[in-house]
Amino acid sequence: AEKSKSKFLNFMSDIMKTAQADPRRVIHSLKAGLAITLVSLLYFICPLYGIFGVEAIWALLTVVLVFEFTAGATLSKCMNRGVATLLAGALGLEGVILAQRLGNKVKPFVLGTLVFILAAGSTFCRFIPRIKARYDYGAMIFILTFSLVAVSGQRVDGIFDFACQRVFTILIGGATCVVISLFVCPVWAGQDLHNLIASNLEKLANFLQGFECAYFECSEGKDNPQKSVLEGYKSVLNSKASEESLANFAWWEPAHGRFRLFHPWTHYVKIGALARQCSYKFETLHRYLTPEIHVSLEFKGKVQEPCKKLCWEASQALKALSSSIRTMTEPCDAKRHLENFKNAIKDLKLALETTSLEGEELMAVIPVVTVASILIEATKCVEKIHDSVS
Amino acid sequence: AEKSKSKFLNFMSDIMKTAQADPRRVIHSLKAGLAITLVSLLYFICPLYGIFGVEAIWALLTVVLVFEFTAGATLSKCMNRGVATLLAGALGLEGVILAQRLGNKVKPFVLGTLVFILAAGSTFCRFIPRIKARYDYGAMIFILTFSLVAVSGQRVDGIFDFACQRVFTILIGGATCVVISLFVCPVWAGQDLHNLIASNLEKLANFLQGFECAYFECSEGKDNPQKSVLEGYKSVLNSKASEESLANFAWWEPAHGRFRLFHPWTHYVKIGALARQCSYKFETLHRYLTPEIHVSLEFKGKVQEPCKKLCWEASQALKALSSSIRTMTEPCDAKRHLENFKNAIKDLKLALETTSLEGEELMAVIPVVTVASILIEATKCVEKIHDSVS
Repeated sequence: AEKSKSKFLNFMSDIMKTAQADPRRVIHSLKAGLAITLVSLLYFICPLYGIFGVEAIWALLTVVLVFEFTAGATLSKCMNRGVATLLAGALGLEGVILAQRLGNKVKPFVLGTLVFILAAGSTFCRFIPRIKARYDYGAMIFILTFSLVAVSGQRVDGIFDFACQRVFTILIGGATCVVISLFVCPVWAGQDLHNLIASNLEKLANFLQGFECAYFECSEGKDNPQKSVLEGYKSVLNSKASEESLANFAWWEPAHGRFRLFHPWTHYVKIGALARQCSYKFETLHRYLTPEIHVSLEFKGKVQEPCKKLCWEASQALKALSSSIRTMTEPCDAKRHLENFKNAIKDLKLALETTSLEGEELMAVIPVVTVASILIEATKCVEKIHDSVS
Repeated sequence: AEKSKSKFLNFMSDIMKTAQADPRRVIHSLKAGLAITLVSLLYFICPLYGIFGVEAIWALLTVVLVFEFTAGATLSKCMNRGVATLLAGALGLEGVILAQRLGNKVKPFVLGTLVFILAAGSTFCRFIPRIKARYDYGAMIFILTFSLVAVSGQRVDGIFDFACQRVFTILIGGATCVVISLFVCPVWAGQDLHNLIASNLEKLANFLQGFECAYFECSEGKDNPQKSVLEGYKSVLNSKASEESLANFAWWEPAHGRFRLFHPWTHYVKIGALARQCSYKFETLHRYLTPEIHVSLEFKGKVQEPCKKLCWEASQALKALSSSIRTMTEPCDAKRHLENFKNAIKDLKLALETTSLEGEELMAVIPVVTVASILIEATKCVEKIHDSVS
């Protein structure tokens, strides 16, 4: 009993965490419930049931399979489903007519062969990366509809009426999904992508600030920055998949808020890739925060000023870039910080050149030199991000 | 015409590339075609059609939705579908009986409310990470089946017969998928994960070898290593998602080849994470291969020997680890290389300590020092991978 109680509590805390992480999830669940209940009305309301009969299950099926979190994903699936259903339906009817002409004896063989060829073909197409990214669901529905029509053609009389009825119920289901996901508290994939990229840049900026503080000031007794600040960049490391799928969904979305139709979403993916490049460098830097690494404090003191300035200016530039993405304005502030940190790089290089190493243990100098040199590399990434944002 | 011709040629070359990248994809497509054609027989063969009638479409639907590339994924979806269908079916029948008792007038309201609550609840559950990873499809099928049963309960008489028939056809569809994906040229997610991790380690080893050659020997006129060798590690950077999903699917697979049931698949995910750590360091190293960076050749010459030894031993250790994963044996060879490269690290440190910097430009020394120091960090990752493999 104890164990199952703790399991239950665990589950409840999972639920709370999931809801707190993104409250739109709760709204989405209610929207999904609403959509499903709405299409159930096709069954519950007598006159409607009179029209569609048991074919109404296709509306239900469509809603369950097609309704997704973001408007773009729902639209993409609806479009895929719609086009694939029509295409496969037309092809299926053609196939049935062809098979009928060839005579009743060979009909099942012709239809069976057609089903096999098209099923194998479209399953294979789903492996092609370009198709997988945008039309995966469509290919699946194509197989499904084609084989349904082909096998039904073997049996059901009046296949045209039956096909029309089914297409109509699927349209009802799809329309319900589209209307609810576009007009009831819509979640835009584009907006999410936009925010994700901006917040990723912010996380990088926070890391640089936190790193500056943790690496150069701890010895002076200041508070260590929080772990969450220093490890925020880790989520940037693995954000590739979500950025790309959001960009794919955003492509389907109509104009909304400050975004036009055909907003350059792929541009966000590029900025995201550069931010990831930067986060790889930070991963290497992060290693040097462990206190076990023996460093020469004297040497560290000598490069401290330009390094701190570099960190500060780069993090300010990133913050300015992030807010210029958020507000969709030209990154003027960032440009100023960029100039400043180019100067800081020069100062740092000068400091490294002029510092005498006499009396220093080289081994204790190396970690500091490495940090400085990775910092320079990382801030060059920031410059690339700036070029790509403006 | 020119344009559409080039588009067609493009598409054909995409097909060829996709097939060449993994020939099992062609076999999988044929398997999918076979499975769909087999369940179509429920329609084509008269006596079978006599038993199942139009309910046979559920077998077709199940095959299209459930048949996946790896055996583990197919099994996972089948189990999810089976359990969710039974659970939702039972709950749905309960709901219908309950609503019937409350009287015919309130029946649609009770059923509608139940559908809304359960649909919203299970949609929300799909956001919880632990459920999403393993039971996402099950939750979807749960909503679908429950609402289907509930709304059908409003209309169809003899709902029990009808439910039994549908469960039976779904079982036929699921069984077809399982049999074909387990016994006809099976693709094991576990085997794929195993190979992926081993080949990732190999890619890291190749990078180290290539880096050694490109960084230290080019000046002597040797051939540059191929770009593919030097950039192979890039695929390791983003392998997290595929490793985790393969591990999830592998969990469902029965014993096969050298793998027992409940093989420690999560262990592979851990090794994969360490390999990724290492690849982040390589990403930083890779930057230093650009010829524009001005380095002191004299200083480079001084640390060249231990650095080369370090690269060589670390890459040999990685290769040994990779092959010990492949053969599932203890990594004895790797242990020897590990000892060697620990010595190489000591030599390198010694070389760095004793090298006099007099007459050297510090700015030209820094890149070399940085490379040496990142190399040391990267090879420490190799040690961690070794500890985790053995």
